[in-house]
Amino acid sequence: MAADFTKGNSQVAAIVVAAGSGVRLRAGIPKALVRVGGKSLVLWAVQALAFGGVTEVVVVAPTGQLTDFEEALSFAPVPCLVVAGGATRGQSVANGLQALNASSTTADVVLVHDAARPLVPGEVVARVIAAVQDGATVVVPVVPISDTVRQLTTAGSAVIERSSLRAVQTPQGFRRDVLTQTYTQTDIAATDDATLAERLGHVVKLVEGSPSAMKVTNPHDLMMVSAMLEV
Amino acid sequence: MAADFTKGNSQVAAIVVAAGSGVRLRAGIPKALVRVGGKSLVLWAVQALAFGGVTEVVVVAPTGQLTDFEEALSFAPVPCLVVAGGATRGQSVANGLQALNASSTTADVVLVHDAARPLVPGEVVARVIAAVQDGATVVVPVVPISDTVRQLTTAGSAVIERSSLRAVQTPQGFRRDVLTQTYTQTDIAATDDATLAERLGHVVKLVEGSPSAMKVTNPHDLMMVSAMLEV
Repeated sequence: MAADFTKGNSQVAAIVVAAGSGVRLRAGIPKALVRVGGKSLVLWAVQALAFGGVTEVVVVAPTGQLTDFEEALSFAPVPCLVVAGGATRGQSVANGLQALNASSTTADVVLVHDAARPLVPGEVVARVIAAVQDGATVVVPVVPISDTVRQLTTAGSAVIERSSLRAVQTPQGFRRDVLTQTYTQTDIAATDDATLAERLGHVVKLVEGSPSAMKVTNPHDLMMVSAMLEV
Repeated sequence: MAADFTKGNSQVAAIVVAAGSGVRLRAGIPKALVRVGGKSLVLWAVQALAFGGVTEVVVVAPTGQLTDFEEALSFAPVPCLVVAGGATRGQSVANGLQALNASSTTADVVLVHDAARPLVPGEVVARVIAAVQDGATVVVPVVPISDTVRQLTTAGSAVIERSSLRAVQTPQGFRRDVLTQTYTQTDIAATDDATLAERLGHVVKLVEGSPSAMKVTNPHDLMMVSAMLEV
């Protein structure tokens, strides 16, 4: 399927990583295709991004299920290109970025978002985009951590002062050339993309995230998201 | 009001800290009195503890609202003694413990629980109790952290390897003499009670918590808990 991105000013692209198998969710289908409130998680995610200013999306889906994803996204509010993921999350982002760079896009801001965060508010998306447009090269939304946190040590565990901690969410925002450089030059292994760019010397700017951008990992999370959409 | 605890074998006491004003919740009443699914958070919390094996509870409430709390707890499944809290969370726990030690209780296991975690599963409560009964002096339930975590530094921020991190929940379990020693000898300032005991040299044992034991801090959390109870 060829990319069909509208050209114009202020194009903002996003790569939505949706290649997870959903094993921990125990749903029997890819996590991003699980439906809550009448829509798949991946469609919720794309809608949230569009609401915040994203104009074109590459969705990275499990190989062999591209058609199911294209179908799930047929009523998406922005053009979506579905491409096959790789063996790891990093490989999947790399595949999405390659497809994006091969397309006709003029975007110089690229967001990387997890389909597992379907309810990120549009204002968080807009904040990430604005920070990149204002000159940051790498931007992540963060929230305070309300639990005490312990770090496992060889001797047992020790408390880390929680006021110094922030939980990192997505979408993470990048200047497109920085994201491309990141995925060209690194070994593609980290829990998030900003960390990879940071290893190349880029400064990560933090902006305010939202509790609504919570990640759906286990059946409990799914129940919460589902309940939130239905109240 | 005098304590009315049934004496017997295997008594397990709990101190429920419910003295928070609920400012961040913007409800206009103490957080623990906010009703979801037809019951106040504090009653949900006491029921969860009772379900897991707690036989008597001291509830620490905001000064001036003891009657409201006694009313909210009139149908609690175990005897509840309501006492006034102090200026800080630590002072409130100390007040609760003092009331417990002044009562007729024979419990040698004491749990400290936040009313702000109303949906802790009974199995988590039981696991904490069992660990103390099996010889641990300080026990905390923990869950893995699914977000990447950054620590703020003078230079900006840096990622902490998340596989080594655990979020600490409540109820935390103590041998009663250890909790008493803790609140006699320390300056009562930490985000959780286990950390105080640890400073005195006690080893903190970690057991498996639950995502359902999430803390209700902001209106978003309350909406989630409310939604979970109504599905």
